[in-house]
Amino acid sequence: MKLTGHLIIGANDAAATEGTMKALNPATNQLIEPDFALGGVADVDRAATLADEAFDCYSHTSLARRAAFLDSIADNLDAVRTELAARAALETGLPEAQLEGETAKAATQFRQFADVVRKGRFLQLAVDPAQPDRQPRPRMDHRLQKIAIGPVAIFGASNFPISYSVAGGDTASALAAGATVILKAHNAHPGASEIQARAIRKAVQEHGLPEGVFSMVRGSGNAIGEALVDHPLVKAVTFTGSEHGGMALYRRAQQRPDPIPVFTEMTSVNPTFILPHALATRGAQIGDGFIERMLVNVGQACLRPAILVAIKGAGLEAMRAAMVKRVTDASARTMLTPAIHASYSNGLAAMANAGARLAAEGSASNADFDGRAALLEVDGQRFLAETVLAEEVFGPSALLVSVKDEDELLAVARSLKGQLSAAMHLEESDMQLAHRLLPVLERRTGRIVVNAFAHPQEVTFATVHGGPFPATSDSRFTSVGMTSIERFLRPVAYQGFPDALLPEALRDTNPLGLPRIVDGQ
Amino acid sequence: MKLTGHLIIGANDAAATEGTMKALNPATNQLIEPDFALGGVADVDRAATLADEAFDCYSHTSLARRAAFLDSIADNLDAVRTELAARAALETGLPEAQLEGETAKAATQFRQFADVVRKGRFLQLAVDPAQPDRQPRPRMDHRLQKIAIGPVAIFGASNFPISYSVAGGDTASALAAGATVILKAHNAHPGASEIQARAIRKAVQEHGLPEGVFSMVRGSGNAIGEALVDHPLVKAVTFTGSEHGGMALYRRAQQRPDPIPVFTEMTSVNPTFILPHALATRGAQIGDGFIERMLVNVGQACLRPAILVAIKGAGLEAMRAAMVKRVTDASARTMLTPAIHASYSNGLAAMANAGARLAAEGSASNADFDGRAALLEVDGQRFLAETVLAEEVFGPSALLVSVKDEDELLAVARSLKGQLSAAMHLEESDMQLAHRLLPVLERRTGRIVVNAFAHPQEVTFATVHGGPFPATSDSRFTSVGMTSIERFLRPVAYQGFPDALLPEALRDTNPLGLPRIVDGQ
Repeated sequence: MKLTGHLIIGANDAAATEGTMKALNPATNQLIEPDFALGGVADVDRAATLADEAFDCYSHTSLARRAAFLDSIADNLDAVRTELAARAALETGLPEAQLEGETAKAATQFRQFADVVRKGRFLQLAVDPAQPDRQPRPRMDHRLQKIAIGPVAIFGASNFPISYSVAGGDTASALAAGATVILKAHNAHPGASEIQARAIRKAVQEHGLPEGVFSMVRGSGNAIGEALVDHPLVKAVTFTGSEHGGMALYRRAQQRPDPIPVFTEMTSVNPTFILPHALATRGAQIGDGFIERMLVNVGQACLRPAILVAIKGAGLEAMRAAMVKRVTDASARTMLTPAIHASYSNGLAAMANAGARLAAEGSASNADFDGRAALLEVDGQRFLAETVLAEEVFGPSALLVSVKDEDELLAVARSLKGQLSAAMHLEESDMQLAHRLLPVLERRTGRIVVNAFAHPQEVTFATVHGGPFPATSDSRFTSVGMTSIERFLRPVAYQGFPDALLPEALRDTNPLGLPRIVDGQ
Repeated sequence: MKLTGHLIIGANDAAATEGTMKALNPATNQLIEPDFALGGVADVDRAATLADEAFDCYSHTSLARRAAFLDSIADNLDAVRTELAARAALETGLPEAQLEGETAKAATQFRQFADVVRKGRFLQLAVDPAQPDRQPRPRMDHRLQKIAIGPVAIFGASNFPISYSVAGGDTASALAAGATVILKAHNAHPGASEIQARAIRKAVQEHGLPEGVFSMVRGSGNAIGEALVDHPLVKAVTFTGSEHGGMALYRRAQQRPDPIPVFTEMTSVNPTFILPHALATRGAQIGDGFIERMLVNVGQACLRPAILVAIKGAGLEAMRAAMVKRVTDASARTMLTPAIHASYSNGLAAMANAGARLAAEGSASNADFDGRAALLEVDGQRFLAETVLAEEVFGPSALLVSVKDEDELLAVARSLKGQLSAAMHLEESDMQLAHRLLPVLERRTGRIVVNAFAHPQEVTFATVHGGPFPATSDSRFTSVGMTSIERFLRPVAYQGFPDALLPEALRDTNPLGLPRIVDGQ
């Protein structure tokens, strides 16, 4: 596929209205061809208008047709896997093999959502039949289904340029819900974004769906994102990225005349607690595994375990030594963008200023945007005194917090803000402490992992990729997994309807054979 | 029960810290004994601290114990039904018999939520077992349950002093979710609030639950509500009332360092569309039924049908005549508060200024706060030109909008903001127009009713009492019905847990026998 650099506004390849940009290869610090169009408020308005016009038709597509459309997106992604991975590698410095895997995962996700759509459980159908003879007054027939909330604006993330970007889980779950999508491409990988957008648009056309089902816009600075969040026809927003960026969008949307739901997935240090018997038994193995996982994607992953908490005692030195070794052995690797690289350096300096000591560093490099691995350490008392030590430093660093006893370990846990995940490493004989720690973690995290490092991400019914603020802006939802579709659905009740006027899924004979709760059963 | 006028802060009967107030009998414009304590920021802080301390214990109560607690609240409400209705009647001017019915409904609602708790479906349990042999890599065991979001602040409404107040659906669903509750009592019915709060607290004590499970505060002006919304230990808010009040709380909560979910149910004109054949066949009957429903609770109900839209033609005059007669025959009745009475008068004046003509008035009265029924009318063109005509005027008034044809009827529907409900009156031969109107209503309302007036409210699995802004602040939820519990729940995933550490509901043998989705089935 030849990249043209256009915006994808429905069926239209739209030229630049606000200048152009080029992608940067962060490994070489060189710009890459071609020019990519930058758009503005007028482009957002066209995309939103199309998305609104397409909504009634698309949100009422049959489940079979919508599922087939999602399957076609998966097929179209498979068809461009090689060139998508190659382009994404150029634009991100990530390994091509990893990006091929990411494309495969993204395609799988569309197929999984096709299955969710076919099964129809997400409609949450409920039927409460009329009770004409009920005393003291009859009951009307009530039926409920969920429908899509409206056109959705999705902000692509930088760190996983496919599975959290244009063809990521947000797009898959929104389209599965029956919402139309306006994607705001991340400027760190415009070529990879275009390839994905074209794969999605091809499926829209193959299935004869209205063009406004999917558009992709791009712009410089914040104006394009603000225009999306402000647009009266946009009814929900999702974002994955920094707390600063996410909260700016979130607060802006809440100041609209009609506030809309904004789900932002932002920041997490994914604290890992090593309980004493696990530490004594297999400290070195845990330390090694922790750093291995921390280094994935050059530390630029939402589930990166960044903080490890252990009680001083048997095994701590062995664990620390394994961490030091693994960090020291790590080569510097290209970070995603110059801005992330700069922010990583600043973050490490802030940690040092707050009293974290440097325990080990990876090898250095001469490349401009290579991130050098770092292991910092601090004791529990210092950690509790310096809130900056609990902040995320996006990149390949970890902080080892050694605490003096169980109470200090619990105090560290209680001091933490909301997290996407937490982990406990434990043996049978640690169970008493685990039972004390568990409720503390439940209140602060969306997922809790035992004896593993929460990677790789599974996309299942039991997946939660969410958590209390600031991990996300609304802990009631997840942005990954089959139930992430709930962000884009709202209930509608139909009372006293003649059968012929009811949505098919709610008719008396249940013609679609979908699961329904009837009279509470 | 002798009213003491205290704040109910956990187990403590708390004295006034910010002065006292008395209740007003709006029928006589006389103050009623006793003095009621007013609290402030310090009282909110004590209640929130207790609610937070109680949370770990209460949110982990067994389903059986929590359900028994909810049943006891129901029993305790039944036990005070007569005195509660008598006091509420004095404070609201509403009929005692209606308020006895409201108490019975509130008690029933607690029993229904006890049943929801026992059945455990709200936990949305999902189990994705480990797949140790999966290629290319094994899958960990993943399990999901929902847990309560944290302590919840609930603002009692004025218009239904029991079922939407202290012992209303918000309290029932929050306690069912496992959340602890801080209730902000409405100052329009302090005595009725105290009776309900004591009934709930009695159940807390009967079941040996921590005192912070339930508190009730009260204050003058906005300070107490602001303190609740600002308090860092409060993790969600619900409110039923005016758009002005609801949005002030909503926007304030979104400006917290950590924004929290706020569900506000605010305003709705519940538009009713009379399709031509229904109009021709039974115009008079529809007009009469519409006004009868409009007058319920002196027009002070969230589901009051306030706007009726019909196409000029056969039956319109008969319908209008029936509306005029029913309004003319209506006696003036006491409104809930002086403020609501004043706002009703101002609202009618604003409608007249915008070109609505007075078609009929009910009889007048000399009482200070009696609301006089009113029927206004306007044509479709004028309605479309004056947005103020689509605003809610809380009280016993209705607006008849006569449109010239089907397209103008659809244009009126499209011009409407979000609504709690809409209704269509139709005959078999109106089905074509109904199919055009339905998607317009689906996008704008949470419930759609055919050939009825959406009253009385049912509390079932298929109930939706919600809708797009400004009907509520988040169309993805309902504030009435069994699924209203979802406002207070968030998912937590447990990965790789040893069986003994898992929450009971997620253990291998499913010891509680609850419904679970296993591997997506």
